[in-house]
Amino acid sequence: MARPTPLSGFPEWRPEGRVVEQHILDVLRETFELHGFAGIETRAVEPLDQLLRKGETSKEVYVLRRLQEEEGAEPDKQLGLHFDLTVPFARWVLENAGHLAFPFKRYQMQKVWRGERPQDGRFREFLQADVDVVGDGELPYHYEVELPLVMADALGRLRDIGVPEVRILVNNRKVAEGFYRGLGLDDVEAVLRSIDKLDKIGPAAVAELLAAEAGASAAQAAACLELAAISGSDTTVVDRVRALAEQHGAVTELLEEGLTELGALVAAAAVRAPGVVVADMKIARGLDYYTGSVYETLLVGHESLGSICSGGRYDTLASDGKRTFPGVGLSIGVSRLVSRLLSDGLVVASRGVPSAVLVAVNDEAERSVSDDVAAALRARGIACEVAPSAAKFGKQIRYADRRSIPFVWFPPTPEHTRADGSVVPAQGHQVKDIRSGEQVDADASSWAPPAADARPTVRAATA
Amino acid sequence: MARPTPLSGFPEWRPEGRVVEQHILDVLRETFELHGFAGIETRAVEPLDQLLRKGETSKEVYVLRRLQEEEGAEPDKQLGLHFDLTVPFARWVLENAGHLAFPFKRYQMQKVWRGERPQDGRFREFLQADVDVVGDGELPYHYEVELPLVMADALGRLRDIGVPEVRILVNNRKVAEGFYRGLGLDDVEAVLRSIDKLDKIGPAAVAELLAAEAGASAAQAAACLELAAISGSDTTVVDRVRALAEQHGAVTELLEEGLTELGALVAAAAVRAPGVVVADMKIARGLDYYTGSVYETLLVGHESLGSICSGGRYDTLASDGKRTFPGVGLSIGVSRLVSRLLSDGLVVASRGVPSAVLVAVNDEAERSVSDDVAAALRARGIACEVAPSAAKFGKQIRYADRRSIPFVWFPPTPEHTRADGSVVPAQGHQVKDIRSGEQVDADASSWAPPAADARPTVRAATA
Repeated sequence: MARPTPLSGFPEWRPEGRVVEQHILDVLRETFELHGFAGIETRAVEPLDQLLRKGETSKEVYVLRRLQEEEGAEPDKQLGLHFDLTVPFARWVLENAGHLAFPFKRYQMQKVWRGERPQDGRFREFLQADVDVVGDGELPYHYEVELPLVMADALGRLRDIGVPEVRILVNNRKVAEGFYRGLGLDDVEAVLRSIDKLDKIGPAAVAELLAAEAGASAAQAAACLELAAISGSDTTVVDRVRALAEQHGAVTELLEEGLTELGALVAAAAVRAPGVVVADMKIARGLDYYTGSVYETLLVGHESLGSICSGGRYDTLASDGKRTFPGVGLSIGVSRLVSRLLSDGLVVASRGVPSAVLVAVNDEAERSVSDDVAAALRARGIACEVAPSAAKFGKQIRYADRRSIPFVWFPPTPEHTRADGSVVPAQGHQVKDIRSGEQVDADASSWAPPAADARPTVRAATA
Repeated sequence: MARPTPLSGFPEWRPEGRVVEQHILDVLRETFELHGFAGIETRAVEPLDQLLRKGETSKEVYVLRRLQEEEGAEPDKQLGLHFDLTVPFARWVLENAGHLAFPFKRYQMQKVWRGERPQDGRFREFLQADVDVVGDGELPYHYEVELPLVMADALGRLRDIGVPEVRILVNNRKVAEGFYRGLGLDDVEAVLRSIDKLDKIGPAAVAELLAAEAGASAAQAAACLELAAISGSDTTVVDRVRALAEQHGAVTELLEEGLTELGALVAAAAVRAPGVVVADMKIARGLDYYTGSVYETLLVGHESLGSICSGGRYDTLASDGKRTFPGVGLSIGVSRLVSRLLSDGLVVASRGVPSAVLVAVNDEAERSVSDDVAAALRARGIACEVAPSAAKFGKQIRYADRRSIPFVWFPPTPEHTRADGSVVPAQGHQVKDIRSGEQVDADASSWAPPAADARPTVRAATA
């Protein structure tokens, strides 16, 4: 086989990169568990008809077929790879509802697949980390406040390894819909789709879209753009939106309900995650199943990367016709985040291998002496490996150095005579810090590396 | 959407089951890292032509196509889901060889897919946990001793949660091939394929197969079956094989080389993992890329489940024509193992949710008081959640009880008057162990649950 080349859109990290990704996954898992979310995994495949319930994503689905399968299998039996973790979770909730206690909170960190054209930060296979809470029939609004704050906590805990700060932008579909309907624009989805393009095409083009797609007059379009321009991280946002709605005679009951909710979220966020959450009236989100709060998250200084953590409130995603399970959730694009951290060198791992110690081998016939040392170290939780061969010590040290393994352990040697006739006295166990060159007597039943060297660490590249 | 039903062959666990699986993955990861293996992940897909290099597995490959892709894309551009982690790792090594230091040790824990007919312990999607070491051009034999001992360590660390003990059965292709060639049987693969069926079809049928497929005489077939009947966990196995070979005039250089290797493995295993490793001359392994040691692992008392950890030495799996990277590795069938542990109730989780504490809510208007308690507990690493609503305390306690959350925290209440006119005095923070009913004053900045209650634990069901 010729030397293979990477597949565009299917990112893979070398060990040092994986150490960074694994650290991030560990922090996310720990944070989600501190907040009471249970971990689950769902299968990678769903029946194709389920995946295609959302028209917009259909072109992205990878369909599976067995290599030697008969052609023309029934479409309803076809399987596709999931393109997110929300649709599988909704299916999983319906399937397991009888065994769950609601409201049910889960986190899920898995790969998803989309057959999109790959570009910077957009992959065909990528890792998502989701938190969702679903209720049985009802779900109190306070979860729409809690969930983005869980993500603010999780992303905040990554600051000290060099992940830039984030802004979680929030809006509320009720505010948008209430305002648009108050203006007399009833094709709410068309308005949202147009506003969603604001960052890409600018206000003038959006105004044209609003006229063409949503039948908006110039005045209505201008009002929609005025709303979209409102943002802020305190509750005065609510007052500004209400004032704009009053000015346009667009105050509705739905708008007031949405403003009450949004105000509660902004107020709570100001206490729990100051400066992180920003109400932003231009956040629309593409997916039409959102019914309340919607969220997007920007990495400060990397806004062009797009959102790294998005989601919202949905009311009817999971329903079997009799019971409906409303939910709210957010999803971190872990691959998008990690890819940027690595490509910009923002976060670095101290090494790619777990070993803190390389146990040298004096002689191939004495390998078991080195194995004994390694076993004693491992029994006390010290990651180590035994040298691949009884090469000269210089070569064994270089082997450790190439892997950034900080310590080399030398098993005891008996008194022996060098080739030049000089006699080397008997020597007990010794361990060498190959960075400083310091070499000391050591006992495998008590010696330990400094805590900072015990396992690979992850830190900001500038630290 | 109607209530969905599970897809056969695509196992999913509920939260309690996932706690067991996650614990096992954590133990495996910790063990592999203690032994110096670096963690990597590879993409789920490989070019179809790479996946089909091994003819035997071709019928199992799931091929991907984009839903709206033009028909008849070039076969060499087609992608399939990987059916193991060895083939992708071999490709990954070739792709990254310039950035790796050899011998390179990695572990990898990921889902794989096979379009097989599902049955007990055989899935279409399942989790594997692999360790491999690959060298550049050469790989010393001692790694064939080390790798099964890593797995013995890993599986041994699972004993205390109720995983049954294991037997790692080892053989050596050089022993088998040397013996067969010494007998005059040159179609070694045909002999191996026949012997591989011994457990399924019995010795009489295998003798017929040997005659039909490998052209063996009755005496040759009988000798092959005699060899296959030899097993044992000490080095007398080596002597018995040699005696049999001498009896049949089948001693070859290759046989002797294989016996030396096998003897070293059995001797080392007797020291490092007494009773775990058994030399078993009937272990053949289906895959034709193995060139030295081969391994299979049985769960004692669950032998009919088949091997839960298999692998071997391969010399030419990863080669770009110029450089060749020989390797040795084993793969644990995590889903097969977990499925049996859960279905037989061998291992149980103390609860499915991480929360050790449910913080009650006195009044919806005072939710922030409960949020403060939760934040203080989380800041000290205590997993908790806040009650979904300010229901009566009895209902909030039942909410915790249904989730097996051991503690309920009651925020302070001012003096107040009950509906019956009785006055309840002011009360500070209290925490209740809902199993014992004991309720005590508590401070969120210092109180902690007993260590055994802090997170879900996993234990043998009989303990």
